[in-house]
Amino acid sequence: MRLTSYTNYALRTLMFAALDAPALVRVQDVAEAHGISRTHLVKCVHHLGQWGYLENVRGRGGGFRLARPAEAITVGEIVRRTEEGFAETPVDPAATAADRRLDASFETAQAAFLAVLDRRTIRDITFNDDELRAALGLSGPAA
Amino acid sequence: MRLTSYTNYALRTLMFAALDAPALVRVQDVAEAHGISRTHLVKCVHHLGQWGYLENVRGRGGGFRLARPAEAITVGEIVRRTEEGFAETPVDPAATAADRRLDASFETAQAAFLAVLDRRTIRDITFNDDELRAALGLSGPAA
Repeated sequence: MRLTSYTNYALRTLMFAALDAPALVRVQDVAEAHGISRTHLVKCVHHLGQWGYLENVRGRGGGFRLARPAEAITVGEIVRRTEEGFAETPVDPAATAADRRLDASFETAQAAFLAVLDRRTIRDITFNDDELRAALGLSGPAA
Repeated sequence: MRLTSYTNYALRTLMFAALDAPALVRVQDVAEAHGISRTHLVKCVHHLGQWGYLENVRGRGGGFRLARPAEAITVGEIVRRTEEGFAETPVDPAATAADRRLDASFETAQAAFLAVLDRRTIRDITFNDDELRAALGLSGPAA
C-alpha cells in the first residue's frame, strides 16, 4: 500500500514552506534539498496553489509560501487530494453482497487511515516541539 | 491509495474457495467468475498455497481448497502479504526529525488501516449472515 511520490512531494513542499515562513521558497530550493526533479515539483506547487495551500509570487525574486498557517493544514486533507482511490467508487449494480462487504471493509479501513492523518498538521510534523513540550510537562507530539 | 490487483485476486480466490468448501475449486472457475486472467490467478493460488492458506490438489479432477477455515483467515493477514509497503522501512541515518515525524504518522495511519482489516475474516465477507443475525437480534455484520 504505497503512497505516491506526488503525495510525498506535496507534503515536503508544504513542510519546506512552513520552515521558511514567511519567506518565499523557490522550487529549486526544495528540489535540491530533497533530490526531487524540478518538473515534478513545479506541477505540485501549481496544484497546491490552485487548492489554496500556497500562494505563488511570480517573476524575479519570486517563489511561493504558505497561504494558510501550518497548523491549519492537516496531513489528511493533503493526502485526500494527492492520492487516488479515496473517491467513493460508484455502486456497481452487478456487485454481489460479498463484493459489497469487501468494499465496505476497505472503506472503513481507509477511513481509519485518514482519521490518523487528520489529526496531524503540517506544523506538527515540521517543527520540533519535543523539547518545549517536555519542559512544559506535556507528553508526546502534539495530537 | 490503491490496493493492488494482486490483493484483490487473492481475496476473491479465498472467498470463492470459502463459498465452495469443501469442494475443490479450479482456477478457471475463478477466472471466469471474475473476468481475471488465468495466468495471474495461477501465480496467486501458488503463493496462497505456499503461505498455507490453500491446499492444491494436482492432476485431473484437481483444484484447490482452503487449508484453514474461512473464519481463521483475516483480511488483514492476507493484505499484509499481498501488498507492498507494509514492511518497516529501515531507519535512514540522514533522516531529519521532520522526516521521522512524517514517517511515524504514516506508520500509525497504516496500523489503523490494518487493525480494521484484522477484524474481518474471509468468512465475514463471504457469507451473508445478515438475515440470520437480524433474526437473532444481532446488529450489523460480524465484527
